[in-house]
This record gives sequence, structure tokens and C-alpha cells, in this order.
Amino acid sequence: MTDMDRSVLVPALTNIATRLRIDSVRSTSEAGSGHPTSCASAADILAALFFAELRFDPKDPHHPGSDRFVLSKGHAAPILYSAWAEAGAFDRAELLKLREIGSDLEGHPTPRLSFVDVATGSLGQGICAAIGSALNARRIKSDYRTYCLLGDGESAEGSVWEAAEMGAQDGLDNLCAITDVNGLGQSRATMWQHDLEQFARRWRAFGWHAITINGHDINQILDAFAEARATKGQPTMIVAGTVKGKGIAIAEGKDNWHGKALKKGEELDKALADFEKQFVPQPAGVDLVKSIAKPSSRPAEPAAPKPLSAPEYKLGDQVATREAYGAALAKLGAADARVVALDADVKNSTFSDKFEKVFPDRFFQNFIAEQVMVGSAMGLAARGAIPFPSTFAAFLTRAADFIRMMAISNVNVKLAGSHAGVSIGEDGPSQMALEDLGMFRAQPDFVVLYPSDAVSTERLVAAMAWHPGPAYMRTSRPKTPVIYGPDETFEIGGLKVLRESANDVAAVVGAGVTLFEALKAYDQLKAAGISIRIIDLYSLAPVAKDALIAAGKASKGKIVTVEDHYAAGGIGDAVSAAVSEAGILVHRIAVREIPRSGKPEELLDRYGISAAHIVEAVKALQ
Amino acid sequence: MTDMDRSVLVPALTNIATRLRIDSVRSTSEAGSGHPTSCASAADILAALFFAELRFDPKDPHHPGSDRFVLSKGHAAPILYSAWAEAGAFDRAELLKLREIGSDLEGHPTPRLSFVDVATGSLGQGICAAIGSALNARRIKSDYRTYCLLGDGESAEGSVWEAAEMGAQDGLDNLCAITDVNGLGQSRATMWQHDLEQFARRWRAFGWHAITINGHDINQILDAFAEARATKGQPTMIVAGTVKGKGIAIAEGKDNWHGKALKKGEELDKALADFEKQFVPQPAGVDLVKSIAKPSSRPAEPAAPKPLSAPEYKLGDQVATREAYGAALAKLGAADARVVALDADVKNSTFSDKFEKVFPDRFFQNFIAEQVMVGSAMGLAARGAIPFPSTFAAFLTRAADFIRMMAISNVNVKLAGSHAGVSIGEDGPSQMALEDLGMFRAQPDFVVLYPSDAVSTERLVAAMAWHPGPAYMRTSRPKTPVIYGPDETFEIGGLKVLRESANDVAAVVGAGVTLFEALKAYDQLKAAGISIRIIDLYSLAPVAKDALIAAGKASKGKIVTVEDHYAAGGIGDAVSAAVSEAGILVHRIAVREIPRSGKPEELLDRYGISAAHIVEAVKALQ
Repeated sequence: MTDMDRSVLVPALTNIATRLRIDSVRSTSEAGSGHPTSCASAADILAALFFAELRFDPKDPHHPGSDRFVLSKGHAAPILYSAWAEAGAFDRAELLKLREIGSDLEGHPTPRLSFVDVATGSLGQGICAAIGSALNARRIKSDYRTYCLLGDGESAEGSVWEAAEMGAQDGLDNLCAITDVNGLGQSRATMWQHDLEQFARRWRAFGWHAITINGHDINQILDAFAEARATKGQPTMIVAGTVKGKGIAIAEGKDNWHGKALKKGEELDKALADFEKQFVPQPAGVDLVKSIAKPSSRPAEPAAPKPLSAPEYKLGDQVATREAYGAALAKLGAADARVVALDADVKNSTFSDKFEKVFPDRFFQNFIAEQVMVGSAMGLAARGAIPFPSTFAAFLTRAADFIRMMAISNVNVKLAGSHAGVSIGEDGPSQMALEDLGMFRAQPDFVVLYPSDAVSTERLVAAMAWHPGPAYMRTSRPKTPVIYGPDETFEIGGLKVLRESANDVAAVVGAGVTLFEALKAYDQLKAAGISIRIIDLYSLAPVAKDALIAAGKASKGKIVTVEDHYAAGGIGDAVSAAVSEAGILVHRIAVREIPRSGKPEELLDRYGISAAHIVEAVKALQ
Repeated sequence: MTDMDRSVLVPALTNIATRLRIDSVRSTSEAGSGHPTSCASAADILAALFFAELRFDPKDPHHPGSDRFVLSKGHAAPILYSAWAEAGAFDRAELLKLREIGSDLEGHPTPRLSFVDVATGSLGQGICAAIGSALNARRIKSDYRTYCLLGDGESAEGSVWEAAEMGAQDGLDNLCAITDVNGLGQSRATMWQHDLEQFARRWRAFGWHAITINGHDINQILDAFAEARATKGQPTMIVAGTVKGKGIAIAEGKDNWHGKALKKGEELDKALADFEKQFVPQPAGVDLVKSIAKPSSRPAEPAAPKPLSAPEYKLGDQVATREAYGAALAKLGAADARVVALDADVKNSTFSDKFEKVFPDRFFQNFIAEQVMVGSAMGLAARGAIPFPSTFAAFLTRAADFIRMMAISNVNVKLAGSHAGVSIGEDGPSQMALEDLGMFRAQPDFVVLYPSDAVSTERLVAAMAWHPGPAYMRTSRPKTPVIYGPDETFEIGGLKVLRESANDVAAVVGAGVTLFEALKAYDQLKAAGISIRIIDLYSLAPVAKDALIAAGKASKGKIVTVEDHYAAGGIGDAVSAAVSEAGILVHRIAVREIPRSGKPEELLDRYGISAAHIVEAVKALQ
């Protein structure tokens, strides 16, 4: 937001745009790969955005009150890097290390760079994070604005329309998105090519203020930003018509130039020579870096979190872990103002409504749109919140690609998935999460928790909140008895040995509903004179490797795992990966076929994960 | 499409709607769970659709020329079942077995029922399958029409808008969707409640013909269906305002009645008594079942597939498996007319463009919208096509929930994911699939293939096409040498032993790029006097358990797995699950942290999956 005279500003921005194009072409040619043409179409937009609109401090990108920019079309990374270099955040010479293993200037942006909030490069996700960033400004009562650049091809992703719906629903007038309509996708022309009205009418239908402009006309770009700032009660989408490869004669507006660097030598030299001719006269002494507006204020630091009181459940109380989750979240909310919750219209099943009742202002309803729920949580987390998005665990698979990018972004999102496994009963397989543990365990550094009773649930909700990085908790539908006293503590990466003796013939490892099947099996086997060790593996990732090996060794070298989950990716694989090199045999009991509707206890038995099957497996191992 | 006089038709349909409501309430009360209120809002729509619009044979639901109906709001399953019972497909008494373990009338519909094409119950998916069903009618040159009922809450799912875009883009005037706008979600009022214009304007903006009606006015419903039939060049969305729980006094239009059955006894009895009063006088002798229009014609059976000629690659040729995949697909297309391909704007990277060039009419471009690509493939497969949707394997995670439902549906979709692992190099982690094997292996009965050279790729593309049920093939970006002769055969569930001796100290199991690292390690170890067995595990699911155990036993009981994939869910877990109970030690080499940009060979080494690391691991095991 500069008040510089346009006669000075426009030529200066034009020349910055040319420099950004030069950088993008040069760095990708040096790397031998990348997307210079996708950068070139966005150069004028980025020049105007960074050097006449955004309020930020190039030396302090994390400033909590600074405007945010999310590059949703992440493949245009080189021009993002170039803009930050132009602003003085780092030495321009670094740009030539693009895509090298020793440089953080990667092929697509990641938060390894201080000026990147969330990783982008899987299309349609940045705009969801931008929703979260805009919500966060409200949360911390800051006037910072969020900007987001999308590609036109990207707009086919359904997640973009989930974000559109939520942006309008929440009236996010502190959000301004721009679609770079260059008309060309990776493999062919985009759906609507340069028909800007196709975009504008969709965004208007979804409740946004939409403006169509020539994305290479600096004046129109600046006017559009001003119009967006003046628009109240709704977010703005600037639909910018551009030319892919703008300014690069060999590629300008041509198909088959997506994701291709110019060849060093004649091809590059010609382009660089052309760029030199694109510089325009500008008044001397203009320094648009110096004129970048600073953040208006630094929001207050959040209050230090208070410790939580001990859980108040009594041994033997019957409480579903999903309900204990909701109660714990509400309790945590009182202790830590950074905690927020997000729902996708199942708050009365996940019990996140317990949080909403106490903290309605920190509760974000996404209706039935899991992608924007998870994506906006990433944006909130990147700006200091500790978001807990929750839904049925089965429906978190809808956001699997976001979860993948969350791991890459290493943001502080705490997911919870309820209704795990066949124990949900009659609703049938579409509602049963049987692959969620595998989905989360696959991602490095993702904490995966699976409590079995209310006390461990409450303790672990706090532990996951205050553990840095992404985490997931799996909760169950049926009520289960409280088995831990109020002073029992639980650590991420821990386990509990519930039964043990010197004569154990096997260790049975379960979690959630199967832990109680294991306890039943213990009683039945004990009656038959057979001792087993029982382990509550409440932390799947990280997993207590040494303790598992010790338990296996103390139990004749045999472990039986039992889980309300498919055979791949869950408890069995986690335990096996931990102990198999120690020479311990792992027998996996899991759901091995597509289940069907039925009563929970019928299904546990039919799909082989009930106490009877554990008894049988232990006996067969003798 | 009946030509019965409205004065006869409307009261008869009204009474059918009442019977459908009675069934829905009665069956859910008997089950003690379910969604009677979500059925009641849709009763008039379903009555009109089944008994005055659809052309079908209740005794032959699979008839290839019959109109299709997809219940996208799958939780309204009881009324779907009731409509088919009313039509005479099965005995109405069966309805009272709803949700019982012995009945196929599950909580949400699955294709265990002959009249269900694809499983629904994860919202926003049925409309994608309906797109595929409508595309299929064109493919087989049939005039059958496809109908799809969505919920209003469901419309927040981004996948719905991917479907909207594709339906309009393909001009599917043989598709008619209905949104049941009952205004109430699971946990609260929906976003737009009864503001029908909010829906209509979105669908119109996306290029559909949209009609708003009172969803309880039979005449308006019939008129809308007729208008949809008369609409050319675009699909139609009927936005139907309804009342949730319509006809059930205790629940009608009330919050907190989602997914709740009426209690048997007073609550149920009162509702049933009320329903009796909702019957209207109708002319005697009217039989709307008899007047159901039959399919207009039976499309021609597809020609029997021809066998494929042997691959024409030469040993040592350098061919990326992604390129061999595209070539194989084109070859297969000539042999089997049922084969179709779907893309999400990366056809020049996955090489599915090789198929498009030969069979443009059997190639469906979805632009950058992976959910509708996979969802419409499900619809195509359910109607007899053999669809091959492909994109970067990383972006198939965007459709993870669809893949989950594909497994439940057991449909004949063949997915391919390119650009596996860190070996893609400079583009960075957002583009690297490192969890895809785990995602697919998790699902029971899903075939998972991972060829290493062009010959095995070609053979396995044909094998997966002709294997009944869902399958996935992982392909790689780098060129790799052809290692198999043209006569080599490959079976789903097989493996190849590439190197073996009587003195092997370990078996190294790889696939894709790591197989070649293993072969390099073999040479290096051999030079040091150490023999290892080398296994190409091209089939991850099913996996050759006996052959792996035999190989492990013949190699001093030691197996080293090496994969361009995260540690969970891939080759290591597959091998370990197969052999660990046989007392064989499995040492897993995999990517264990979030990777970054760099050259492929740098990344293989940095993330520990290169030949040097295999050599080191084998030596450490001695």
C-alpha cells in the first residue's frame, strides 16, 4: 500500500517485473528444469503485490502482524524467490542455486524458507491455507491481510471451491486472491482459456467480489488491489488475464512450454537480450524496497498456557474416547488460548461441540468440506494457532493429500478422527476408518496416538497440543471403561503394560476397542492356565521400540497384535517394524476383508479381532 | 417416462411416497438406527423418479441399456431399498432386516445389492460416479439416462464441483441430478438452508441447466424431469426444496433428528398412524409398477478382447516405466474396446497421451481434478468399461477417499501413478509419491503392481486390465534398462528372482528404481566375495508369500528390502507381513524423512536407498 504517484510507480514496477522474469528464466535455466513460463505470466502481479501492496518487513517474514502471501500455484516458486530477493530478504546470487540439494530454494516452496508459511505444489491447497491465514487475523485481532495467487488450471480442483464457499461464508474481506489466467495447463489449453468471465461468474456465484483485469497492466492490478481493500463483508477474487511465458518470445502463449527451462546458450541468451529491451525509463532514485509498507502493529503475544488439572474420571466409568476427546479439548481450550477447533458438520459425533459451546469464537464450522477444514487448519497453524480439525476418521482420507503436504510443511495441526473401525457397527464400511493409522504413520515425524480410555485420551490431547509438529489422534465410537487413575501420565512414544508375569507366553498388543478384547482374552487364557502380557500401545508413532522388544523377549519372543484396522499400516506393522530385527515373531490380527453392516460385537467377531480370536491365536503360537 | 394422465398419476405417486416413508421409518426403527428423516425429505422425488421417469426392469437391474440412479446421499439408503422393493425387485419383508449382519441391505448402499452400481455414504462421490455413468452411455452408444440424488449438505464437498465442471464441460445432457434441499445437516442447519437460489446460481455458473422446485410437489417434480429430458447440450440440476422428516410430526423440519430412528412403541406407532392419514384417494386398478418404462434397447455386447503380441523392447533399452505404461495402454486399447483412459492434465508426463492419440473418443480429460477423475472411472467401470485413470502418484492421494470407496465397491478401475519417490529429483517433495503403495496396499483385494522395466510394465498393464477388481500400478520417472526378454511372463502375485546362488547371505528385495540399485549392490558385493539374492517384487498385493519365505530361507534367513517410498506401508511392510512368522529377519531400507529437491542420484543416496546403503546393510547383517 504505497501512495507513490502512479507515474513513478508504474514504470518502476514494470522494471521489477522484468527483473523477476529475468531471475525466473535464468535460475530455471541454470537448474535445467522448472517453470519459467508460469512465472512470467505472474510477474506483473507479483511486482505490484510485493512492492506496492503488501505490508511486510523483508528482514522479518514471520512478523505476526505482516500481510501474508500464499503462492497456491507453487510451481511458480522461482518468481516467489525472486520477489523476496528483490525485496532484500536474501542475496540475489542465491537464486542461481535453485533446485540444488544444498539450497532451500526448492522446486516448489516449503517452510524451510522463512517466508513460506505452508508448502505448496499440490494444486488447490494454498487457497485453503489462505482461508486459515485470514481466519487467524481475526483470531489475533490483527489487521493483516492475506493474499493468494492461484493458477487457472488449478481452479478445477474441488478444494478451491470448498475454500471459495468458506471464504464467503466467513465474510473474509481481509482475503484477496488472484487467479493468473494464462490459459495453458501442463498438457493442453485450460478449460476456459482466456474467458475471464467464466471464472468471475463462478466466484460471484460463490459469494466473492470478483474483478476481471489485464494481468499485465500494472495500473489495473493496483486498482484491483485497492478495490479489494475497499470491499467489505466478502473476499475478493481478481481474475487476471495473462500470457504464459509473457516476455519470452520463444514460449509466449505457446503450448508445450509448461515446466520447461530455456536451454543455456542461444535460447537463454536470446531471452535475456529480449528482456533488456523490456526495461522502461523510470525516474531516478526510486527505491520501491524502501517504500514497502511495514506491518501496522505487532499483535499481542499469546498468554502462556496453563497446566491442566488431572482428569476427573473414575475407574470403571464407561466413556467413549471420542467423548473424552471433546471434553479434553474444551478443557484444553481454557488452558491455552491458541487452541482452536474445526468441524465438518459432525461436531455432535466427534464431540468437538463440547469445545464450541465454551469457545464459539474459536470454533470454525466448515460444513461437509474436509479439504478446506484441514487446509485452513494448516494456515491457522502457520500463524500461531494450535488447530484441532476433527471428523470421522474415514473422512480424513478426503484430505489425504493435504495431510501429505502438512507433513512436508511440518505445521502444528492436531487432527482427530472418530468412528474408527468395524466397532462403529451398523452404518457399514463407508463410515469405518480402517486405513487411517496407515495414512498417518506413513508420514515421517507425524505423531499418531490411539487412546483406549478417557484418562489417556485427556492426557494425550494435551500432549499432542503441546508437541511441536503435526499429530493425529484416533478415537472410537463405543463406550469403554476407564482403566487408568487420574495421576497416570502418558508420553508421546510411550506404552503401558497392563498385565505381566514371569510366565507370559506371548505379549498381546492392542489399542482402542481391541485392548479390551485383549483383556478379555487374558482372563479366558488365565482361567486355562496360560499367562499373557497385555500392552496398551497408545502411541503408534513414535513407537516405544525398546519397550516392545523387552516385552517380546519377556514373552517367549512372541507378540500378537490386534487392531480394528486393516492389516497394512497399523499396529501390526508398527510393532513388526520395531521388533522384527530383534528376532521376535509378530502375529498380526486385523480386519482382512471389506466389512459390512452389523452389530459392533458381531463385527469384531466376524472380522477376527475379538477376544475369542486372540485366545485362539495365542494358543496356536504355543 | 410414463404418459399416464396426471390426475391418475399424481395421487398414485403420492401414495407410493407415503409407502416409502413408512418403510423407511419402520425399517430404521426395527434396526434401531439409520436416517429416516433424510429418507422422508426425498420420498416424493424417489416415488416420481422410480415410478414415472426411470426406464428400467426391476428384475434385471444390471440391464446395460437401463437408466441409472445413483444415491449420492447414501445415508438415505432405506428409501432406496424401499423403492426397489416397491418396484418388485425383492420382497418388502426383507426391508425389516435393514442393517442386520445377514442382510445386504446395509446402512449405506454397496454393490452387494444388484441394483447399486457404486457404494455411497462418503458424501460428494455419487455425483462423480454419475458423471462416469453418463459418459459410459456415450461410450456404448446407448440412450440410457443417469439420475443422481444429492443432499444439500453434501454440496459443500469440493468433489461435487469437480463433477459440476466435468458434467458441463462434457455437455452431459443425459445426466439429471437432484439436490434434496432439506436445510438441515447432521449437526446444524446447512449453509444455505432453504435458499434454493444459492444452489441454482452456483450450478448455473458452472454451466448446468438449473430448475428450482418444491420437492414435495409431484407435479413440479415430474415437470422438472421432463424439462431435464428436453434440455440439450448441458446436464440439469433440479434444486428441490424439501422438509427433513416430512410427514413425521415429531421430527419434521427439526434439528437434532439427523441419523436417528424413531423409538419402537409410542413414537413409531404415532408416526405410522399419521402416515395412514397421508394416503390420498386414487383411481382403482392403477399399477405404476407395471407401467415402468423398459430400457429402449440392449446395447451391443463388447467384442471379445484379443490377445496382446509380445513386447517389442530389446534388452538394455533405456525406457522409463511411465513411458512403457503409456505405450502398453495404447496397445491394450487396440485389443480391448472396453479400455478407456482418464487424465488430470498430466498426460504428457504419465504418457497416457499415447492412448489419447490413438483413441481420442475413449480418452476423458478431467483437467486438474483428481477426485472426479477417479470417481467417474468408478461409474464407467460399474457400467462395463475398464477405465485407467492416471496422474502423478502423489496426486492420487487427493482421491484417497474415492479409492477407499472403490475398494468397497469392488469396481474394475485400474489406476496408474507416475513419478514415484525421490527419484523424480528437482521438483521436490510435493511431487514425490512416498506413501502411495501404503495407501493402496491398505485396501483388501486391491492389486498393487510396481514394475521395474518396460517389458514387465507392458505385461502387467494387460494383466491388471483383465484381472477383475480394482488395481494400481506405480510407475517411475527415470529411464531404466529393459531386463526381461519379450517372452517373459508376469503374474499378479508373482516375483522374479534375478540373481541367486547357493551361498547367498541375504535376499535383497526391490522394485522400480531400487531394483537397479540392488543390482549395482550385487556387483559390488560380488567383487568383495559376498553373494546376495536379488528379487524383483513387481507385485506388492497380492504378494508371493511362499516364494519370499523360500528366498529368505535360502539366504541365511535374512531379507533386506529397499524402496523409494516411506518406511510404512510399502515393500518392507509387505515382505515383513509375508515372512516374519517364518522366522526370517527383515531389514527395511526406505525414505525416513521429508525429502528435498536435488538430483535423483543425490537424493537416492541422501535418503539412504542407493546401492551404497544396500551394500552397507548387507555387510552389517553378517
